[in-house]
Amino acid sequence: MERNTMHTAGKDRDPLTDPDIIIQGGIVLTMAEGEAPLIDGKVCIRGDRIIYVGKDQDLSRYPEKAEIIDAKKGIIMPGLINAHSHTAMTLFRGLADDLPLKEWLFDKIFPAEATHLSPETVYWGTLLGCLEMIASGTTSVVDGYFFQDSTVRALQESGLRALVAQGIIDFPAPGIPDPRENLQRGRAFLEKWCGFSELIAPGLFCHSPLTCSDRTLKEAREISSEFSVPLQIHLSETREEVDEILKRTGSRPVHYLDNLGLLSADLIAAHVIHVSDEEIALLKQREVKVVHVPESNMKLSSGLARIPEMIQQGLTPGLGTDGCASNNDLDLFREMDSAAKVHKAFSMDPVTMTAGTVLQMATRWGAKVMGLEQAIGTLEAGKKADVLVVDCTAPHMVPLYNPVSNLVYSATGADVKDVVVNGRVLMRDRCFQTLDAQEIIKEAKRIGRGINK
Amino acid sequence: MERNTMHTAGKDRDPLTDPDIIIQGGIVLTMAEGEAPLIDGKVCIRGDRIIYVGKDQDLSRYPEKAEIIDAKKGIIMPGLINAHSHTAMTLFRGLADDLPLKEWLFDKIFPAEATHLSPETVYWGTLLGCLEMIASGTTSVVDGYFFQDSTVRALQESGLRALVAQGIIDFPAPGIPDPRENLQRGRAFLEKWCGFSELIAPGLFCHSPLTCSDRTLKEAREISSEFSVPLQIHLSETREEVDEILKRTGSRPVHYLDNLGLLSADLIAAHVIHVSDEEIALLKQREVKVVHVPESNMKLSSGLARIPEMIQQGLTPGLGTDGCASNNDLDLFREMDSAAKVHKAFSMDPVTMTAGTVLQMATRWGAKVMGLEQAIGTLEAGKKADVLVVDCTAPHMVPLYNPVSNLVYSATGADVKDVVVNGRVLMRDRCFQTLDAQEIIKEAKRIGRGINK
Repeated sequence: MERNTMHTAGKDRDPLTDPDIIIQGGIVLTMAEGEAPLIDGKVCIRGDRIIYVGKDQDLSRYPEKAEIIDAKKGIIMPGLINAHSHTAMTLFRGLADDLPLKEWLFDKIFPAEATHLSPETVYWGTLLGCLEMIASGTTSVVDGYFFQDSTVRALQESGLRALVAQGIIDFPAPGIPDPRENLQRGRAFLEKWCGFSELIAPGLFCHSPLTCSDRTLKEAREISSEFSVPLQIHLSETREEVDEILKRTGSRPVHYLDNLGLLSADLIAAHVIHVSDEEIALLKQREVKVVHVPESNMKLSSGLARIPEMIQQGLTPGLGTDGCASNNDLDLFREMDSAAKVHKAFSMDPVTMTAGTVLQMATRWGAKVMGLEQAIGTLEAGKKADVLVVDCTAPHMVPLYNPVSNLVYSATGADVKDVVVNGRVLMRDRCFQTLDAQEIIKEAKRIGRGINK
Repeated sequence: MERNTMHTAGKDRDPLTDPDIIIQGGIVLTMAEGEAPLIDGKVCIRGDRIIYVGKDQDLSRYPEKAEIIDAKKGIIMPGLINAHSHTAMTLFRGLADDLPLKEWLFDKIFPAEATHLSPETVYWGTLLGCLEMIASGTTSVVDGYFFQDSTVRALQESGLRALVAQGIIDFPAPGIPDPRENLQRGRAFLEKWCGFSELIAPGLFCHSPLTCSDRTLKEAREISSEFSVPLQIHLSETREEVDEILKRTGSRPVHYLDNLGLLSADLIAAHVIHVSDEEIALLKQREVKVVHVPESNMKLSSGLARIPEMIQQGLTPGLGTDGCASNNDLDLFREMDSAAKVHKAFSMDPVTMTAGTVLQMATRWGAKVMGLEQAIGTLEAGKKADVLVVDCTAPHMVPLYNPVSNLVYSATGADVKDVVVNGRVLMRDRCFQTLDAQEIIKEAKRIGRGINK
């Protein structure tokens, strides 16, 4: 990434020459370390990159060349990064709530997945999730699921940035009835999609230490290393998992994975709730990427991850929504609010998990989870242009003393006005630019009627 | 309230004659005990009352007489009831977050109130809150604050239903520099507003057992009884309060208030976090109205009220947002989601606080808190017409397997399309019908610039 103190790039010519898009007239929150909000700032985009961030007033000579997005005194900020989701599970939103965990999973979700997932339904479910993410300001998603060719196809149509991982589990799974084929299916997925798209990177997703054997975990690690792609896993999500792994292996889950050689900078571990001080230290030492998933953890009574302690130990967790069967939405603005509040509730310390910290989790730290901290997560010249405009005209956004506070504690995704990913406008004045919302919602409802029979 | 099994009223003529408003084409969720959602139902309104709820198809003869509100396959439901708020505190939204409780209250909020509250600012702050409440589907609010003549005036202009209570505290307070005048100011407020308006009922609000003397509490009780109005109080909000009251009086706060004769069916107690089993039993025995305020309690690290236990003991708590300095919004949809999730998180029991329970808290049980269970809280013929239409066309509301689940776990206030209070349309297709949003927001911003100097 090019970077200089003037926030300009493209040294061979005037950095302000030929912007394709000028976003102006708002408070620019770059989310770069230590930078204050820029009142009445501008973000200029050429191609897929940000070429200027600042308060320069002299852009009047480019109006006829550039598309002007007026922030209307709203907030211009980096796109949000959903660091853990199973996007197509939008199809199961509200299908089964307020149930004991085992009944929810084994009697409702697994059977629904077994019966109703197909390349076609995952395609439409992912598209529905893309609509929801775009509409609520998410510009990148870390996805792990099945029928992932369909997920890639849907995400490509949406224009979103994504890490899409093929699910691996040692049980019959959607699209992989024989678990002996799970690793070769993973390998085939990587072979197909590695290097295929600038926006969509492939990966592998081991369901959990409980549901994958040690051999499967090790081989998945080897394959992902061979292709230089991240490996995702659900880790220490429940007490039962910890107890069972301890019983099976004599080690707690983090140590168990370390013994297998899984812990590394490209392991993305979601949930990470029931961990000891030693496990936190080891996660830090191995530079594992942790993802906090508070609303799902609350709704499923999984426990509360020790995120403030992890941050204190130097970890930089991302923030994820999980799938819509356990949340039940993909709105990262609401997730930030919950993250900030639930830690205050548990710790009895109102100073913990500030609005600034959770906003960082959903932007800069999310970029680190994806291995893209050089490319996205902040608004800086030279970075990829993943940018939001958040409208601040609704009553609940007034007054605006502190943009970070209003974004975390008052906004919802519905306040997002414009969304740009990689220099392409995906939503403009709340109108989708890449997807046919009407068709997608019609198809999702049709599939839903089949599920709800 | 008239009521019969056919959901019709107005026996002297055809119950379907002359509806002023017909809301149709949606799923009707009456929230009456044990009633299933009515697919493609209708709610007919004449004057200030509901005259019909059902699936009768034969309304075609009235189209030219009635205003038709098309729910467009959304959800038709009772208006939400915010059972605890300080509405004008919208002006302090985002002014001070993530601070230790005492610093927040004594260094930020109290000084801001002392410096910036006036009849004029409370008027505009309340109007801003009215916009926000209408926009997020709240049709009734229980308010306690200062300069309450202004609050009444603003609420009357909005068309919302409210219980407005004059604040009483044994410290110099906004508008009452000499605390010796607090009770006579309370009495004067009741004399002025009792019987004045059908929609706005007056009351008294003792700030807390810590900040009001025993004599003040007893006299406030006597005055409110004399006028037959409810008495509000913050109760057992912090551990410090419990410790201090124990030290001062030898009793825990609930027992202390009982000794003073305060506990009764028209005492509205907000927060009620740190209570013993005996205190819960006593609250039930005295039929005290408890209000749960989860997001404020989370954000301020006050603790988590024992709501599931209270419900098990037969209490029927309402749900409140608190003021915007500690939440930071007035959106009861988000509050319902937090209420359902935070109890699951703390109890490690995913079956506790179901979506149905929290929706009941925000509707029928909120009506009980206000003493209006015969008039509002459900959609039934004969009741007052406080009705919402929630749009279900946004991606995050699809599919719609279970309307209660989607309302609690997926919707936000921004999904509310139409709002009717007492038979009057306050918002239509998200356009405010009674208030000038542009003017109110302009004034609120102007006041905010003064506060933020």
